[in-house]
Amino acid sequence: MSNFTPQNPNYKHIVTNIFDTANFIRDLGIKLIDLGAGWVETELLIQAKHLQQNQLVHAGVQATMADHTAGATAGTLIAEDEYILTVEFKINLLRPAIGERLFCRADMLKAGKQFSIVESEVYMVNDNQRKLASKATVTLAVLKQS
Amino acid sequence: MSNFTPQNPNYKHIVTNIFDTANFIRDLGIKLIDLGAGWVETELLIQAKHLQQNQLVHAGVQATMADHTAGATAGTLIAEDEYILTVEFKINLLRPAIGERLFCRADMLKAGKQFSIVESEVYMVNDNQRKLASKATVTLAVLKQS
Amino acid sequence: MSNFTPQNPNYKHIVTNIFDTANFIRDLGIKLIDLGAGWVETELLIQAKHLQQNQLVHAGVQATMADHTAGATAGTLIAEDEYILTVEFKINLLRPAIGERLFCRADMLKAGKQFSIVESEVYMVNDNQRKLASKATVTLAVLKQS
Amino acid sequence: MSNFTPQNPNYKHIVTNIFDTANFIRDLGIKLIDLGAGWVETELLIQAKHLQQNQLVHAGVQATMADHTAGATAGTLIAEDEYILTVEFKINLLRPAIGERLFCRADMLKAGKQFSIVESEVYMVNDNQRKLASKATVTLAVLKQS
Repeated sequence: MSNFTPQNPNYKHIVTNIFDTANFIRDLGIKLIDLGAGWVETELLIQAKHLQQNQLVHAGVQATMADHTAGATAGTLIAEDEYILTVEFKINLLRPAIGERLFCRADMLKAGKQFSIVESEVYMVNDNQRKLASKATVTLAVLKQS
Repeated sequence: MSNFTPQNPNYKHIVTNIFDTANFIRDLGIKLIDLGAGWVETELLIQAKHLQQNQLVHAGVQATMADHTAGATAGTLIAEDEYILTVEFKINLLRPAIGERLFCRADMLKAGKQFSIVESEVYMVNDNQRKLASKATVTLAVLKQS
Repeated sequence: MSNFTPQNPNYKHIVTNIFDTANFIRDLGIKLIDLGAGWVETELLIQAKHLQQNQLVHAGVQATMADHTAGATAGTLIAEDEYILTVEFKINLLRPAIGERLFCRADMLKAGKQFSIVESEVYMVNDNQRKLASKATVTLAVLKQS
Repeated sequence: MSNFTPQNPNYKHIVTNIFDTANFIRDLGIKLIDLGAGWVETELLIQAKHLQQNQLVHAGVQATMADHTAGATAGTLIAEDEYILTVEFKINLLRPAIGERLFCRADMLKAGKQFSIVESEVYMVNDNQRKLASKATVTLAVLKQS
């Protein structure tokens, strides 16, 4: 991945805040693990409440994790008076997702002034082994706070 | 929309079950409202737990609703020994989603033997007025139960 | 579809120009048929040069038609000093495309200041009967000319 | 990338044929450069006929290259009595595409019995330097010849 330079020296605090103040993410149990300029990693302990009718992790849980981690990634590179909203995303569910935990890694593919493109990979983790469950491409708008 | 003929006379029971036995959907509060061969309608009363950091309904909530309602729609046309899994979906978030309720309508675009394509529209509802919040296109695999 | 108001009274001339000056579109044979504020229709006479290895119309031909017609649709609503570039699109190939002609209809789903979302439907036409071959959702950036 | 094992020992001949017999690809000038089990590389010398109204390479040219190279990649892993059709793809246009040549690399993300997922990256090449122009994710059906 290319090197990115943050515009806001305080970006780690900003991104941490995106996790702490989003009810849906807190309620689901998605945790910020690590981050840098242009990338973010998150984790989710799989619980019964995350499953669909066949006892797999619901595609919506994976999509939420992929989207939110992508938004946080775009958030690592914005200026102090900007914020991020998802314009659209596409996710491919590659394998039935089961296991102990989900791990998500998002990387900036292209950082722009009006919008950014981020790729998110969601892995299932069992006995510390990772297997790719789904992959998303997310387009995010960079907006000025009013 | 085209007319579709269900293969399983019991399809309404099958689809109701997809909602009753999916923990993530029950926990979120997404309710089945109405259905027919090739279409399904659902609703969600917006609560604080559905919001992201800017007090909007999280894109992941909308994606979950769009995906699950699409899966149920594909479920209206399958045979007794088949089930549905999402292969991929794309969702466009068209407007910031706020309000009292979300309403989702999913319609079969193409029903196939190996996979089906469904479109889901998610509306925000305020004072019984609907406004389109997001739209998804969902590709679903039709699989034989083993 | 909603009603849209063009910003540029000369928009039909602008859009006609998007077809006349795009070599790839002229070379393929994609013709502008009709247009209004927020919608455009195009047509292509299918020739041997448009086919892939199984004698079907190549997905790339359909994607080109869907994308260009979507771009023209966004072009019907821009100001005089603006232009349009595709940010991303997704296309579902619903049926093997064969026949005499392709017809494409694109409709604005959401017109925005920074970007617009357009849906394009590509039909195969035989004996004046239309059948949906593919459907695309296109995100387009609205940019200021420098 | 994972290691993949071809089912058809003759797969290089099969894939070469996918390029030689597709009129649209031959006419555009897209050439097969190299291939292995689960990946394919192609190239296109940019000519005036590939451009759109702003003298950039048309998104449809990039989409065609990404899709066809992805289809060929899925083709490296199929059995003798199978063939490949694109179900859907999404492409992000990351930068205005100009230059001498386009280079495309496609890699299998997930090979399945019913469908495969391939990622295609399209680079612009100038003075032997590559810059990523667009990236696509392609879902392909694996079908039995009748």
